[in-house]
Amino acid sequence: MTQQCLANAKLATLAGDGYGLVAAGAVVTEGERIVWAGPESALPPAHAHIPRRDMGGRLVTPAPIDCHTHLVFGGDRAREFALRLEGASYEEIARAGGGILSTVKATREADEATLLARALPRLDALITEGVTTLEVKSGYGLDLETELRMLRVARRLADERKVRIRTTHLCAHACPPQYAGRKDAFIDEICIPSLRAAHAEGLVDAVDGFCEGIAFDTEQIARVFDTARALGLPVKLHAEQLTHQGGTALAASYGALSADHVEYATEADARAMAESGTVAVILPGAFYTLHEKQLPPIAAFREHGVPMALSTDCNPGSSPLTSILLAMNMGCTLFRLTPAEALRGVTVNAARALGLDDCGRIAPGLRADLAVWDVDDPAELAWRIGFNPLHERIFGGVSC
Amino acid sequence: MTQQCLANAKLATLAGDGYGLVAAGAVVTEGERIVWAGPESALPPAHAHIPRRDMGGRLVTPAPIDCHTHLVFGGDRAREFALRLEGASYEEIARAGGGILSTVKATREADEATLLARALPRLDALITEGVTTLEVKSGYGLDLETELRMLRVARRLADERKVRIRTTHLCAHACPPQYAGRKDAFIDEICIPSLRAAHAEGLVDAVDGFCEGIAFDTEQIARVFDTARALGLPVKLHAEQLTHQGGTALAASYGALSADHVEYATEADARAMAESGTVAVILPGAFYTLHEKQLPPIAAFREHGVPMALSTDCNPGSSPLTSILLAMNMGCTLFRLTPAEALRGVTVNAARALGLDDCGRIAPGLRADLAVWDVDDPAELAWRIGFNPLHERIFGGVSC
Ligand SMILES: [Zn+2]
Ligand SMILES: [Zn+2]
Repeated sequence: MTQQCLANAKLATLAGDGYGLVAAGAVVTEGERIVWAGPESALPPAHAHIPRRDMGGRLVTPAPIDCHTHLVFGGDRAREFALRLEGASYEEIARAGGGILSTVKATREADEATLLARALPRLDALITEGVTTLEVKSGYGLDLETELRMLRVARRLADERKVRIRTTHLCAHACPPQYAGRKDAFIDEICIPSLRAAHAEGLVDAVDGFCEGIAFDTEQIARVFDTARALGLPVKLHAEQLTHQGGTALAASYGALSADHVEYATEADARAMAESGTVAVILPGAFYTLHEKQLPPIAAFREHGVPMALSTDCNPGSSPLTSILLAMNMGCTLFRLTPAEALRGVTVNAARALGLDDCGRIAPGLRADLAVWDVDDPAELAWRIGFNPLHERIFGGVSC
Repeated sequence: MTQQCLANAKLATLAGDGYGLVAAGAVVTEGERIVWAGPESALPPAHAHIPRRDMGGRLVTPAPIDCHTHLVFGGDRAREFALRLEGASYEEIARAGGGILSTVKATREADEATLLARALPRLDALITEGVTTLEVKSGYGLDLETELRMLRVARRLADERKVRIRTTHLCAHACPPQYAGRKDAFIDEICIPSLRAAHAEGLVDAVDGFCEGIAFDTEQIARVFDTARALGLPVKLHAEQLTHQGGTALAASYGALSADHVEYATEADARAMAESGTVAVILPGAFYTLHEKQLPPIAAFREHGVPMALSTDCNPGSSPLTSILLAMNMGCTLFRLTPAEALRGVTVNAARALGLDDCGRIAPGLRADLAVWDVDDPAELAWRIGFNPLHERIFGGVSC
């Protein structure tokens, strides 16, 4: 197996509660894995023979992980964005085919090759910033066939690029017009059967829903979660984004990997999440785009030790964001996270939100998924806006 | 001279009040200039022999122009950004060397080569998004020698990259501690002499100031503007950013190219700007970073026909932004500009804010500074967040 020693590096290992900095550090990799990391002066003699690559004193972090995306979708919503700013009424926008259902329509109409071709530039934008692992959700099909097609495309992304994809089944995302007023029937007739079918095809790593007045209530989500549990699949939830509906407490009661958005979560929710080990996935792109005012209870998350992740929420409606670095900046600027929390949010805590324990830190045994940055201080990653200081991306030990 | 015909293009010429779209268009260039643009079907026989380059139906716009930057500076402020988010008091930050004076200190300490090396990655970020013309201000020297050094570095950027630089003398940016309580003396002893010296060296395309309670009042700015007028230099002003100080009316009375920020400008200010032909330069990056609440009077600007430009305001303190596309998105999202206004803001109106009449539109006689984009609808440029769809950048007729 190929061995290398990345030397003369400033490491942010993410050990402990902060950056886990090692000033004059080295990382030894063997094949896909890290076998040693620490101060270069402490490099064990057993590794002394390994070819040394000089990192020029640059910062080396775990590669960013984007733990919440809707990267695969048909069409775009630029026209709707323009119409709204030009003062069109909601009725006019709806008539012009706006809203999530326009994306559902475009996604249903797109074949696998088209969905793949449209997703790749978005994926490439994330890869350009060093992302090596990302989650991709279904949820713009709302029928069995299209939900499965979206997940197949998500899986294929990993054949097209050097990247690791985690798929999430999100059929309980919105209720299609055919089921208007019959949400329970939509859960029973579409969500649960499509989940079973997608799982049978090996397309599901986790199960998600949207718990909101405009989407599904806790009882409907619970039925989806019961099916997930029966199939042995972990769950996560879009919860308390626009109002408080109790989704976070429900998710915690199922031991969910994460509760996402959580602007309207309460201190009691934070306590429940801490107990269940549920990660709070903070999504500032949607907050920014939707002009939200309610801030997630960051202080309560800190106090109760709820891990916080940050993600792009890349989607065509509320967050057409394809920059994980910008998600970090927005997390700091809009939600007052510290730069260290922002980096933890896209590494160690993002891994946890995906149920992964083999990435997100620099430590022996973990995947050698690393990012090398042209910055002096790790805080620069979050401070700069619209600037990409990535020098090198390493995926499973390989520069690419 | 090299001739080329960019054919099978969707043109946004920026003619008229909107995009000035030409669906199946062509642009003929000769050397550095555009000699013809219009529907491909109307291409004059005289141009029929010119080598045709197929643009594949892509959108072609004037190349973006960034009309307000502080791109040249020493040091960075990431540490200060982190300290603030970690809850440090202003006193602690000041003791750690925060604020604009920390940038002044770092800039004074940096030699020309260092300032140049630090500015180039920021310039490259803008170039990556197609920018061909940008303004660079002095203003972190606050002494004669450093102000001139900043402007020399700004000029040198155009030797290092295929880009056009407009320099702006901004010594009246902040009052250094040596002149605390003696702002008039700073204007007389430093600002005006450094302006004369920089002008004598051919380093000044325009003159700027910061009219604000924490900076200079209208009388002090007027003395700088009088000197500019005597030297035959156009003026512009940082005005009404944090409070209303009357800077916009002053700038208009001097026929200023632009008044910049202008969050606290009034309807009367808008009327004065319309009469003097002064451009309102909207800077959403600083608004975003500083958590401002006061929106610029966009409706009044529209009503009175004040041209609006958009810019990054790239600077280490209030707007470490190096993405003109993100400035467009922020202009739409935070200030409710339309996507067409956003594109006009970084092309035709940005040119006007720099006093340039040879760029910013696609029309015969203008510079062939063009951007080719992989988008279907020009609104996509402003809709997406943290995504760069640039396919090709053309500077003076040359792809680069
Ligand atoms: Zn989402
Ligand atoms: Zn400025």
